[in-house]
Parts: sequence; C-alpha cells; structure tokens
Amino acid sequence: MLLRMSTLFLRTLREDPADAEVPSHKLLVRGGFVRRTGPGIYSWMPLGKIVLENVARVVREEMNAIGGQELLLPALLPREYYEATGRAVEYGDTLFALKDRKGADYVLGPTHEEVFAHLVKGEFSSYKDFPVTLYQIQEKFRDEARPRAGVLRGREFHMKDSYSFDIDDAGLQESYERHRAAYVRIFDRLGLDYVVVQATSGAMGGSASEEFLAETPVGEDTFVRSTESGYAANVEAVRIPAPAALPLEGLPEAAVHHTPGTPTIETLVDHLNGAGLGRTFTAADTLKNVLVKVREPGAAEWEVIGIGVPGDREVDVKRLEAALEPAEVALLEEEDFAARPFLVKGYVGPNALLDNKLRFYADPRVVEGTRWVTGADRPDHHVVDLVCGRDFTPDGVLDVAEVRDGDPSPDGRGTLYTARGIEIGHVFQLGRKYTDAIELDALGPDGKPKRVTMGSYGIGVSRVVAAIVEQSHDDKGIVWPRAAAPADVHVVGTGKGEQIEVALRLAAELEERGLRVLVDDRKGVSPGVKFTDAELLGAPTSLIVGKGLADGVLELRDRRTGDRREIPLDGAADTVAAAIAAE
Amino acid sequence: MLLRMSTLFLRTLREDPADAEVPSHKLLVRGGFVRRTGPGIYSWMPLGKIVLENVARVVREEMNAIGGQELLLPALLPREYYEATGRAVEYGDTLFALKDRKGADYVLGPTHEEVFAHLVKGEFSSYKDFPVTLYQIQEKFRDEARPRAGVLRGREFHMKDSYSFDIDDAGLQESYERHRAAYVRIFDRLGLDYVVVQATSGAMGGSASEEFLAETPVGEDTFVRSTESGYAANVEAVRIPAPAALPLEGLPEAAVHHTPGTPTIETLVDHLNGAGLGRTFTAADTLKNVLVKVREPGAAEWEVIGIGVPGDREVDVKRLEAALEPAEVALLEEEDFAARPFLVKGYVGPNALLDNKLRFYADPRVVEGTRWVTGADRPDHHVVDLVCGRDFTPDGVLDVAEVRDGDPSPDGRGTLYTARGIEIGHVFQLGRKYTDAIELDALGPDGKPKRVTMGSYGIGVSRVVAAIVEQSHDDKGIVWPRAAAPADVHVVGTGKGEQIEVALRLAAELEERGLRVLVDDRKGVSPGVKFTDAELLGAPTSLIVGKGLADGVLELRDRRTGDRREIPLDGAADTVAAAIAAE
Repeated sequence: MLLRMSTLFLRTLREDPADAEVPSHKLLVRGGFVRRTGPGIYSWMPLGKIVLENVARVVREEMNAIGGQELLLPALLPREYYEATGRAVEYGDTLFALKDRKGADYVLGPTHEEVFAHLVKGEFSSYKDFPVTLYQIQEKFRDEARPRAGVLRGREFHMKDSYSFDIDDAGLQESYERHRAAYVRIFDRLGLDYVVVQATSGAMGGSASEEFLAETPVGEDTFVRSTESGYAANVEAVRIPAPAALPLEGLPEAAVHHTPGTPTIETLVDHLNGAGLGRTFTAADTLKNVLVKVREPGAAEWEVIGIGVPGDREVDVKRLEAALEPAEVALLEEEDFAARPFLVKGYVGPNALLDNKLRFYADPRVVEGTRWVTGADRPDHHVVDLVCGRDFTPDGVLDVAEVRDGDPSPDGRGTLYTARGIEIGHVFQLGRKYTDAIELDALGPDGKPKRVTMGSYGIGVSRVVAAIVEQSHDDKGIVWPRAAAPADVHVVGTGKGEQIEVALRLAAELEERGLRVLVDDRKGVSPGVKFTDAELLGAPTSLIVGKGLADGVLELRDRRTGDRREIPLDGAADTVAAAIAAE
Repeated sequence: MLLRMSTLFLRTLREDPADAEVPSHKLLVRGGFVRRTGPGIYSWMPLGKIVLENVARVVREEMNAIGGQELLLPALLPREYYEATGRAVEYGDTLFALKDRKGADYVLGPTHEEVFAHLVKGEFSSYKDFPVTLYQIQEKFRDEARPRAGVLRGREFHMKDSYSFDIDDAGLQESYERHRAAYVRIFDRLGLDYVVVQATSGAMGGSASEEFLAETPVGEDTFVRSTESGYAANVEAVRIPAPAALPLEGLPEAAVHHTPGTPTIETLVDHLNGAGLGRTFTAADTLKNVLVKVREPGAAEWEVIGIGVPGDREVDVKRLEAALEPAEVALLEEEDFAARPFLVKGYVGPNALLDNKLRFYADPRVVEGTRWVTGADRPDHHVVDLVCGRDFTPDGVLDVAEVRDGDPSPDGRGTLYTARGIEIGHVFQLGRKYTDAIELDALGPDGKPKRVTMGSYGIGVSRVVAAIVEQSHDDKGIVWPRAAAPADVHVVGTGKGEQIEVALRLAAELEERGLRVLVDDRKGVSPGVKFTDAELLGAPTSLIVGKGLADGVLELRDRRTGDRREIPLDGAADTVAAAIAAE
C-alpha cells in the first residue's frame, strides 16, 4: 500500500469540531478519518476505512482461528424474526422500523441472534452437526436515544457478531471460553488496555456474561474493581453478598415513635439520637422504602413495588433498570399515591405494601434478624426495631442500592473502587432463550430431539477504533498501535524538488518491503504543516526527507516515544524495515 | 484457506427450491451459497461469502489501479440529501423510507451520488484538488416492485459505486474512459461474456452512459446488436436515424375518406386497397396516433399527449417510459376522453391535438414531406395524403416505436437483432445535475468558481455472482471461473480411513502452496454423494483420493472440460499446483 498525500481525499482540520467533546471524536474528525453524515451516522474516509479494515482483519483472523465460519446476513429483516422472540417489543424505540411498498413490516438488524438460529435450524438437524460457530462483520443499526461521541456510540455502526450453537451446557461453556480467549488475543493485538467484567445481559436474556471494557475516563460504562483481587464487574452486575441471618430471640419489640419534623434521613437520625433511646443511630440503621412502578413488555398495566434499602444509600437507577429488564421502570406520580391512600408519602413502611398486596423487595443486607428504623405508615411517625423475619418478610431480594468506593469486594478480598470504560466486546451464554422460541432441536444419539444451546459474542469494530484513539493519543494527535495504523511509515518530503522525489522513491522501496506507506509529496506545503499532519494522523513511524538530504541524512521518528534519530540515505529503506521488524 | 466439509456450515440440496426459476437462483441455493431470509433478501453462507469477496477483490484491485480511493458510507441516510436533488420523488416507492424515534425522515441508500458530492464539497475547494475518484463496496437497498431470481434482483444487494469529480468536460470524459477500461478488465478477469451497450440513464439524469450486459437468456434487459458492426444498445437507447426530408411540391392534396368498418390498421389498409385510389397501401403508410397522459415528478396534473408512429409498429412501453423519465406515463381513461370531445376514439388525427393545444410528437420517420393515412377526427373517416410539414407539424420527435429484428442498424451497417442480458455494470457521465443541486464549485486558476462535473459508475457485486453462474454452469452444477471460485481445488477423500487422512494431508500441502482448498473429509458419506457435491459446488479442479490410493494413484478432474487424468500420489501437491499455474 502506498498512499500519496498530494492526491489523497483528505483535508485535516486545525480546529476541533464544534459538536465533539471526547478526544477520539475530535481527533478522528480532525485527522479526516471520519465525517458526520447525519446524527450518529458517520462516513469512513480513505484513512478511516483502512483503520476500520485493519481492526476487522485482526478480528477475522482470530475468529477463524477458533473455527468461526464467516457469513454475511442482510441488515434489512422481516420484523417477524424479532416478534417471535419478543425482542421487537424489548428493543422498543431503539429498533429502526420500516414498511416496504406492500406494507409489510421490517426492521434494521440491531443484532442477529434470531436469523442465525433460523439459519442453523434450516441446515443442521443431528447432534453430529454440532458444535458450530458462525460470525459476520457487518453494519448494525440502533436508534440510540442519545447518540454521542462520534463513532463511539453511533446509530449505524460496524460490528462483529458471532453465535455458537452447542448440544449441551458443557459445549456452550467450551464455546464461550474459546471466544473469551479469542477476544483476549484480539484486544491484545490491538494494543488496548481493558478489563473483563461480569456483566448483566442487556436485552439479551440468558446467564453467564462478561464485558470487555477499555478503561478510559470518557467511557459510558461504570465498573468497579477490587483493590486486592482481580474482581471487576459492571456496576449493574455487582452482587452484594448477603450477611448471615441473626437470631430473632431477645430483640426488643417494634415501637412506633412520634417523629415530627424529620423529612430527611439526616433529621430523623438526629431526632432519634436526641430522643433518649439509649443507643446511637446512623443512617445505615434506617430502612428507606423507595416506590417505583414497573411494566412488563407488552403489558398494559403498571405495577407499583417497594424496595427497601439501607438509609445511607440511594437506589442506583442503572442497577435497578438492569435488574428489572426487560420491564420498564418509572417513578410514581401524584395520581398513583391518590389511588393508594395507604401509602403515606415520606412514612411508607414495608407493611403498608405487604398488607395491600403490593410487592416489597429488600436489599441483600436486609436479612432475618436485622432491625430497622422505618416509616410507620402514618404522618410524622416512624417505627424503631422493626425486625426482618419477625415484623415483616420481603417478597425477595433486589440488589439495586448504589455501590460505593470502599465497599467490600463481593469476593471478600479488598474493597471496591470505581472506574469508567468503553464496552468493546461482550461474550454471553444465551442458553436456550432463542432456541426455545424457534424450537431449534438436534436429534441426539438416542434418536430423541435435544434443544440446542446458544452463545452470542459481539465486538464493536467501529467503536474499537474510537477506543484505541481514546487510549492512545497525545496533545498533538493520534498514536496508532501498528496493527490498527493507517500506515506503517509516514514519509515526509519537506522541500520543493529533490526531497519530494527522494521521498517518493523511498516510499516505493518501503512498499516493496511489504510496508504500508503514506507519503507526503505535497508541493507548496510548509514543513511545519507536514510535521503537524504527520503527528495528527499518527502513523507509528515517520521518515523525514528534509534539509539533511544534502548530507545524505534522513530523520527517523517514533510517534509513541518521540525518539528522533538520523539515519543515512544509503540503505534507508532497509534500515526502516529492520527497525519496524525489531519492534 | 482450507475448508473442511466435515465441519462446514453447508448442506447441499438435491431438489431445486420451489420459488426458483432461473439457473443461478437454483444452483446458488442448492449449493448452499445463499439462503433466502425474506422476499428479495438473502443471506450469504460461508461459500457464498467467499465468492462474493472474490468478486469484490477483483473490483477493488481494478478500482485502486485507476486511482480510486475507497471509502465506506452509511446505508442509513437523512432523507434531505435526496430531497435536495429531487430523487426522493423520482425513486418513489423504490426508496425504503423510515423515521427515527424523533420522527425525522431517513432513507436506505439506493445509490450515493448526493452524499459523495457533499463529502467532496466539504473537503475540496480548489481546481488543484481535482480530479478525484471515490468508491465504496457496500450494501444498497431498493424496494423493487418485483424482486426476482434470487440475488439477481434483490432488495438488499451488494454494489460497488464510484464517483468521479472533474473540473471540466474533458476531465469527465477521461475519468469515464478510465472507468470503462477498468470495467472491461474486471469482467474479463471474472470470465464473463458481456457486451457494452449504449444506455439510457434510469433515474440518474445526465448524458453519456453505457451498460455492461452479461448475455444470457434469463436477462431482464433486452438489447439489440448489429449483424455487421459492433453496434449494441439497450432497446431504450436505440435512436432511429431520421430520413432526409422530402420536397413538398407536387404532393396530392389531403383527402378525407369515409372508411366504415375499419377498426384496425389491417381492415383500414384492406379498405383503402379496395377503394380504387390508384395505389397500394401497407400498414407502414398509416400514422397511428397513440394517446397517453404524462405527469412530471411532483406535479398535480396529468397532461395528455399524442404520439404518431407508423401503423406497422406499436409503441414500446419501456422505450416510452425511458424517453419521458422521470415523468410518469399512463393510458387514458374514459373520463379523459369525455373531458376532450375533440378526441374521436379510433379516428384521432394530429390536428385534433395540435388545434386543441395538446402536444403531438412523432416518430423520427415522420419527416417533412412524408404523407400519411390517419384519423380524420370524426367517426368512420380517415384522411389520406396528410403531409407532414404541410398539413401538420409535430411538436417534436419521440423515438419510442418498437425496434424489430431486421431493422437497419442506426450506424448504417447491418441490421438489428435482439438479445437478452443482465446489467452487471453501468458507467455514466452525470455531468452537473448533482453539483448544480448542491452548488459544488472549485476555485479555478483565474480565481473564479467553476462548477464541478461528475461521473457515476456502478457494479452489482452480488448480481455479478449470479451472472457468472448463469453463464457458467451445466446440468450437474456450477462451473466457477477460478477468479470467483469458492476454492481452487476440491480434494475428495472417498474411503473411510486412509483416503480421508491422505486427503487432509494433501489439502494442507496444497494450502501451503498458496492454493485455496476445500476438502471433503466427511465420514459415512458415499463417494457418489461426494462427487455430486463437488460438481454442484463447482471448484475448477478436483483431486480424488479414492480406490487408486492403494496403487499410489490419484485422479485430477477439470470441472469445465470434464477431463480426468491419473496422477501419482508422490508429488501430487506439486503436480496440482503446476497444473493450475499453467492455466
């Protein structure tokens, strides 16, 4: 590959685009890698297309290495595929929907579980046919409510999606492990700094699931890590271990207290500590009962539920939504209270809910034998020493309270701290959700049908490009890892005549040595502009053909380290090729 | 590349699919290259994806060779791009339209002239920046009224679309010629038998245009060729040369005759020949005035027009639609006649139209001095010797009469005959239609803005796959040309144990020699089934590891010629590689 800047369809920009907030968005636009074509919709320009293809190539090689077979499915899909599994409803507004000229319903594929499952059902029928792993690298469409950050969260984006089909759980586990290992190799080859976190499933349904997160402050995903162990999890996936139950014997009776002027947990705690009850209360001794309403996909009615969390913590909305997915969650409105006069705003206790057949869930820390200060279900009154398992029994556990820095790590080693990352990959044991929906069976060795089990695995190829830039740039521009770089070597000819001729000759020699070369052969452009562009575009190696040429000397620059060294013109192509080979 | 049939996601079919009528559709489905996912929507299975990629690679190499720069644009596009140029209306129902969650209008790109023109406007501004040629290989979406024949005319399909931008007409001509030459190389490399025909433009607007048609009886495009010259043209593009005008002097006066019982041209001619007029009439002496109504894009009103054609020819609807494009054309209804009592059905003459301010166009053969038998604008009457240029003057020429086998070739050499083809490529001098719409200018050397001129060039990559199969198959299956083939060599191990081991070893050796190999290593499958599959799948070369193995002998088969020859096991991989290299 040899690209000449004099004819390349590229104009770099000195200024950041007005709509760009994160470094990858700014730099990919300034470097002419992408251009905005619509909201959340980008065109890949010549250098951007090369980078995108480089990432896709690494992904493809590692997918082939684990026996993945590449297909190419359509983006335009009859909606019925997604109706049968309920995902048309689950995706909601995120699904781009359209009708054809006959009025038939279609969607633009957000991910292709259903269609791959149908394909397998059409071809394979015996246990001997399995396992099989299929993948594609293709554009996906999601009508994000808030597309942002350029190609980091676009509405049309490029994705590798693969699907494993196995005859039993052990097979699925193996397929999952193979994918996980392939993902490690892919992201390592691309020079990414990432963590693998336990994850919830999004709209996919299913069980075991991990996300690959590229750590960066601009990441949309918050995750927690342990200070001491390798534990890392998406905040939505953190599972607080329940403490052991305590004996009920000997606990004081629950007592209702008049607590006027205690609208907040803080004022309540102050009031109690001033009430001469013989002990000191903290916010963690109170039970805050948060009310929300929930609607299952396709249901007409909302259901009001209560969630009891220790009063020193808020409910984390993302954790709550993830826990209740695919149901919708909303706050109560005045009319919801009006219709349920037993809910006394500010003084709701567990029993008002339980006595009136509303479901009440509690934080994992609310175990049998714990005692709480909570609402007494009448204005200006709280109850003290309401004991779980004696005075109230939650309908279940809902682990949705906020996770805080310093919380103990769920694996018992160290404490948690928070970091941010970009989701670049996702591996997922779907299980039989989709194969049940379409009855995908294989005849077992005993002649009986066996339900196939599925895994689903995604890499956001276009997002990976942005993640690389987030992790690998400086104030001058992008610092591409070689595997993704638009070129191995950027040859810069700075003069008017001879330097450019020599630059072109060296570029051709480097290309002959199998290197991908970008050569700045523009005339009438100053050396300063050319150096600035080379730094912005970010090829790992630059070769400068400048003033030193008269003395037979060139300059070799390393973009990452900033190292510069002079090399002789004689044998320069070999010198450069050897330096790159030695990396 | 080494693919093993034992694990390949492939099940061949013995029966033709019920919905398939043409050979390429039958064979691509039977060979497991594609599967139907929806009406006019196909999934590319592993072998199909390889073939598609092979075609794309040839296209890409030749596009790069003429300096094309590859980009990748989105499929989902704000509708406003197509509003600005009027194409949203022109495409009509063929455009897949949708709204996003905010109600904004989008389309799925049917072709990307507008977006590329905008991109160029965003980057380039000086005459020094031009020429530039940009391309992409990407899926396109068209809601065809009648999707048919599998991937031959799908609704989501893969296309290479490129666009040239030049500063003047001479530059456009050069860009056009370069593309045309690249297309010749591409289709030659892919082993296609094709003709280049003069074409009309479809919904594109513009001037010079040629289509590459792969000749096959299942083709949707009818074209004509000359028996003697290289002349070939899409039927829509045939331009009948006008004969020289004749002197008006000395021609007899027009005379109205009572012609009862002459509802057809034939009965009219019979009547006239029995009327003792002193000469013999043929249908070619009559002028048939066909009435249609026409509506311009976006117009509310239909306009009625008349078209005079020699009575021995019908109006060709496709030629008519192409000539009037982008206007719609429809036949008159009773109410149209009722509103225009001067139109006497069956007896309409040119002057009823011209006298009533309706436009009247005539066939190119209707030149000054020709005399005609035609309607006299009252029931049961015709006029004889109505002379063009004396008794009526058409508003213009409309060359839409049917073209027939045996008609003189427009270039004056030989006569025309009809053939059918599949449009696999299209080169097109768009001119300034789109650059005018978005005011794409470049500053000229004189400092004045100059309007850029554009070319548009398409290759239907997925359609090319089908066209290859149409031209290259027999009753046993596909006969792939090597450039497109899913594998160079299909190694077939027919026995149970040793043959399959040897087949796998040979496959690996062939792969080491740079060949793409498919190996049939399935156990428990009969030799007959394996041979049948090898012929259906159509790799150009097969290597059979069968009974002869005991004697150290293999069989080498050529799919195209059917040649079979024994080769020794010793050095077999070298023998096969040499045979392929010698092709």
